[in-house]
Amino acid sequence: MVLDRLKQVAQHVTGATPSPHPFDPLSAAEIEKAVALVNKEHGPLYYNAVTVLEPRKAEMLAWLTDPIHTNRPHRVADVVAIRKGGTVYDGLVDLDEDKILKWESNEGVQPLITMEDLQIVEHLVRKDPKVIEQCALSGIPKEDMHKVYCDPWTIGFDERFGNKVRLQQALMYYRPHVDDSQYSYPLDFTPIFNCDTQEIIHIDIPPVRRPLNQAPPNNYHPAAIEAEGGYRKDLKPINITQPGGVSFNINGRIVEWQNWKVHVGFNYREGIVLNNISYNDKGNERGIFYRLSLAEMVVPYGNPEHPHHRKHAFDLGEYGGGYMTNSLALGCDCKGAIHYMDASFVNRAGASQIIKNAICIHEEDAGILFKHTDFRDDSVIVTRGRKLLISHVFTAANYEYCVYWIFHLDGTVQLEIKLTGILNTYAMKPGEDTHGWGTEVYPGVNAHNHQHLFCMRVDPNIDGPENTVFQVDAKAGPGEVGSAKNKYGNAFYAHRTKFATARESMSDYDGSSSRTWEMANTNKINPYSHKPVSYKLVSREVPALLPKEGGLVWKRAGFARHAVHVTRYQDDQIHPAGRHVPQTSGEPSQGLPEWIAKHGDESIDNTDIVLWHTFGITHFPSPEDYPVMPAEPMTLLLRPRNFFLKNPALDVPPSYSLTPSQIAAKKGAVSNVDKASRAV
Amino acid sequence: MVLDRLKQVAQHVTGATPSPHPFDPLSAAEIEKAVALVNKEHGPLYYNAVTVLEPRKAEMLAWLTDPIHTNRPHRVADVVAIRKGGTVYDGLVDLDEDKILKWESNEGVQPLITMEDLQIVEHLVRKDPKVIEQCALSGIPKEDMHKVYCDPWTIGFDERFGNKVRLQQALMYYRPHVDDSQYSYPLDFTPIFNCDTQEIIHIDIPPVRRPLNQAPPNNYHPAAIEAEGGYRKDLKPINITQPGGVSFNINGRIVEWQNWKVHVGFNYREGIVLNNISYNDKGNERGIFYRLSLAEMVVPYGNPEHPHHRKHAFDLGEYGGGYMTNSLALGCDCKGAIHYMDASFVNRAGASQIIKNAICIHEEDAGILFKHTDFRDDSVIVTRGRKLLISHVFTAANYEYCVYWIFHLDGTVQLEIKLTGILNTYAMKPGEDTHGWGTEVYPGVNAHNHQHLFCMRVDPNIDGPENTVFQVDAKAGPGEVGSAKNKYGNAFYAHRTKFATARESMSDYDGSSSRTWEMANTNKINPYSHKPVSYKLVSREVPALLPKEGGLVWKRAGFARHAVHVTRYQDDQIHPAGRHVPQTSGEPSQGLPEWIAKHGDESIDNTDIVLWHTFGITHFPSPEDYPVMPAEPMTLLLRPRNFFLKNPALDVPPSYSLTPSQIAAKKGAVSNVDKASRAV
Ligand SMILES: [Co+2]
Ligand SMILES: [Co+2]
Repeated sequence: MVLDRLKQVAQHVTGATPSPHPFDPLSAAEIEKAVALVNKEHGPLYYNAVTVLEPRKAEMLAWLTDPIHTNRPHRVADVVAIRKGGTVYDGLVDLDEDKILKWESNEGVQPLITMEDLQIVEHLVRKDPKVIEQCALSGIPKEDMHKVYCDPWTIGFDERFGNKVRLQQALMYYRPHVDDSQYSYPLDFTPIFNCDTQEIIHIDIPPVRRPLNQAPPNNYHPAAIEAEGGYRKDLKPINITQPGGVSFNINGRIVEWQNWKVHVGFNYREGIVLNNISYNDKGNERGIFYRLSLAEMVVPYGNPEHPHHRKHAFDLGEYGGGYMTNSLALGCDCKGAIHYMDASFVNRAGASQIIKNAICIHEEDAGILFKHTDFRDDSVIVTRGRKLLISHVFTAANYEYCVYWIFHLDGTVQLEIKLTGILNTYAMKPGEDTHGWGTEVYPGVNAHNHQHLFCMRVDPNIDGPENTVFQVDAKAGPGEVGSAKNKYGNAFYAHRTKFATARESMSDYDGSSSRTWEMANTNKINPYSHKPVSYKLVSREVPALLPKEGGLVWKRAGFARHAVHVTRYQDDQIHPAGRHVPQTSGEPSQGLPEWIAKHGDESIDNTDIVLWHTFGITHFPSPEDYPVMPAEPMTLLLRPRNFFLKNPALDVPPSYSLTPSQIAAKKGAVSNVDKASRAV
Repeated sequence: MVLDRLKQVAQHVTGATPSPHPFDPLSAAEIEKAVALVNKEHGPLYYNAVTVLEPRKAEMLAWLTDPIHTNRPHRVADVVAIRKGGTVYDGLVDLDEDKILKWESNEGVQPLITMEDLQIVEHLVRKDPKVIEQCALSGIPKEDMHKVYCDPWTIGFDERFGNKVRLQQALMYYRPHVDDSQYSYPLDFTPIFNCDTQEIIHIDIPPVRRPLNQAPPNNYHPAAIEAEGGYRKDLKPINITQPGGVSFNINGRIVEWQNWKVHVGFNYREGIVLNNISYNDKGNERGIFYRLSLAEMVVPYGNPEHPHHRKHAFDLGEYGGGYMTNSLALGCDCKGAIHYMDASFVNRAGASQIIKNAICIHEEDAGILFKHTDFRDDSVIVTRGRKLLISHVFTAANYEYCVYWIFHLDGTVQLEIKLTGILNTYAMKPGEDTHGWGTEVYPGVNAHNHQHLFCMRVDPNIDGPENTVFQVDAKAGPGEVGSAKNKYGNAFYAHRTKFATARESMSDYDGSSSRTWEMANTNKINPYSHKPVSYKLVSREVPALLPKEGGLVWKRAGFARHAVHVTRYQDDQIHPAGRHVPQTSGEPSQGLPEWIAKHGDESIDNTDIVLWHTFGITHFPSPEDYPVMPAEPMTLLLRPRNFFLKNPALDVPPSYSLTPSQIAAKKGAVSNVDKASRAV
């Protein structure tokens, strides 16, 4: 609307803070405003989350298309709060009109466990007489209770307790010294904590007891390394510098880099959210993705003994990838020229709090981008690649997840995740058999088999919101060897299967057929290849969900049953395991299965769709992963196919180029070789 | 032997060149010495290859174990030569005793096509009257024959011509201007060239003719980019420097880096060969691999129309990954502080020739190596990774392959291959249907479907040569959901299948079970995990061979029928598609199938074995790949599992470390943050 434009002009003139972009996370001030409005009407409350409600897509697309003549979408806070006694409220607050749009109480629902929720438990566990008794049985005298630690987890789901009462399970550990890694001293019992009454309501005690581990500490801190011979001294520094500055521009939270344009959001659940990703194709700004995020994950552990089935953390839905985000340090987590963004959240009391340097944005050299030498005369071109990384790192109790969204010069978007941190461990008694459910990674320390399964949510916008998904399999051509149509047996082709409905789209990975999935705009045909413009999902780390059909994990983590699901776009379908994940029974299964049960026969052909991709690794621990795990990377690509008319990076200045005519003329080579390099 | 030791001492005293390491490639002087010895007895000859015969393993292991008291293995040249008339000779020359050990002529065998062999064809094709006639039919007047080019390929196998006569097929192109990319102007006919008589003996002409493409050039050279709007100007330099020098030491061709020790060899077939790879595990030098190389590859094209079935290049066995290696340029192909090694080969005339900077050795930063934050108090450790890359790049006519052998601090060896260069293209007439066998990547240009399948040869030496291979699959545990042993259905485990014989070892990839293969030493058990020490092959780009069973490619590329084959070690089993690959019919199939047919029932359990792994990608071209293809990476890992007692990189100095007691004391943090980094 003109009004909005006038407001912006006025801000420009008066020097006031510009309006936030509708995709921006709530600022600290907006969070506090939302809390004030809610508190006035409904307080006192414990705040679980106050986050931006992203604008409804229809409204947002209208505004993005014509911001001058369209109403700017209102800033709306999505509020989750808990009243003493346990009632959970979901609310919406319009921050432009200072108005509570929605305020609903919910039964049988538990919102995620915040860092503050986690921090409370250990303190109380140490004082609980029954816990003290169990510690004594394990061999820990009561005067050593300050050496007892716990990693509080959501309970997942336990049918004995249901979902009416908000619970945590305390995975118990011991530290001989405050600096010792507790994961070498797991205890064998599991207290259950009521978050509302702040009491231990039960302790799960295994039938076979395992006393406190007697092995010496297994540490990774400097004192331990020094005691074992010290640090290696022969690693010489590698300096990475950009004396001319970086190659990206940032306007608010919109990053522009090498024809790419992307809005970098962040929320407490998903962490980084990338919106409105476009590529400037020779002056034509073409939409590619409306939204990309890691939307959910589940880490099922494979030991069937009670109560390990409860270990299947939904780290995003049950704890929050944003809430658990590290404050990054320059020259540690990232090297080079770094731009950081902070993150603002609400705390339990309703105040805002900030994680400094939550998001890291930087460039890296990416090796050879393309090269070709003509064998006749050694005429050559060699051009180096570059990538832009938008990353955050979050700590989920023992594990860390490093998430890198990477933009490439060739139009590819890559998601790389590195797993590091510490294995979840359980106690073993001397000589105990793991029965294959885990590995003894250190004497007395059993690290259970587990999977890390991530669900990436892709809202494609391939030259517009009307898209269609095809499964593509490499297949041998028809005709037996010797037949006229396939005499030598070499025929093969890309077999394309269009997904007409969400139900049809539930598909698994097939490595042998090099299976990929194409998000295409069938209304727009590449004039050269006569194929629809598309982006292809190339993902090769796609294990099957190992927990069995009908079992607890299978029921709760419906998104993980298949590598790909495609649904018709709906504004509130963001969380594939549901809005509130802790203590869901999986009956019925929330999120994707629920949506597909309702809408699974609607057409998803040539309409606004969302692709959900579950990928990850199966982790059988070994001693090399311990006491702290070297980063294990996994990656996937979203690659342009028939989207561009040619390699879009041809105009990246070559390091060196020499043509046949220049060779003949003995002059004219183009050389931009890196002057900082040295031969040694 | 004492003699050898005395010789070395004498060299030390006299300052003479030290004896080459037995794994070293032949020097230029050694090549010329071998040629002189052969020429004297058997000349004149055209030389095809003069390369080191790697020492017999038993002899070499004895010498490596005790070089003082053991005879140093002799330097032996492995010679392939061709006499005018076509007879092929395989010879061995002992360079220490100046003696020809073997000289055999071979019938029906064609050694690989050298760069010189390739260079001859184009010149002769242009003068051939029948080719001139075909060019005229395509629309090229005879005065423009200098604008006609060809990429000569081996013929592969054509049953009409067999293998008695040495042949090449000429894939034909046209350049309007000498600097234009010929791949936009493919011609539709294929001359066949006799290398011995240097004549065109036949031309394959398709039933449907395709005239010369009339589309404008599609170029990537600077003049073309300038004409289209010029280069982008906003990419700021990234400088990578090592002011304190590099972290590796090189002694001869032995590279020592961060506990790793590896001999870097190079030959005309495989390119880089890594020998005797060991890791210094706290003073104990432990063997890991006796030899690693890319041993073969095949690139089958999927168009069944004649004569495209002949397009299935064995780039290593038919042309030589070493022969086709690029001379690398500082600051172009690699950035930072680079150590180069040259490569020496024989030429057709028997003289030595050198490729300068054939191998690049350098370090790169590798991001976060490990990190953990304690959520209680933000005590933290973050340690950055580093990698050592040993790489070469080779040009196979249109394509380039960039091969990176990468050593990591955590004990992992990674092989990364980037594909770049130019698609092989074929002519289309306007409106022609590709029938799904290819993609029109530019008007009139059909890029056929193809696979790039690489065969990595792994000779494991996991704490000694006696090793055993297990296939490992993630499997759900027994017991239905609800049963006592798997109540919640979450049980899963690593199902291990031991390969007892080569025949049993022929196995395919299974992505759904996260399939890996473990090379283990079952005689040595990890004291913590009680599992055998091992290295695990983690490879996720493993398409099935698409050409059908019984067809030409299936017969010739036996190695590509399965993801993994394991054979009992034999000294001369280096080349999985055979020693001389061009014009093999595949009846019988050479290399792996031949060896397994003979020895497939011998035990491969706890003995000296070789694992052959075929991996790669299926490539359905699109316009983005053209006119020069952005590098497409693929990778695999060899990871230590139960090999080390703990993460072997704990002694890498952390960027930052802070323990709970240091937080309490408010002092003592260890900080080595990178000072060159800057916030922007
Ligand atoms: Co893990
Ligand atoms: Co290709």
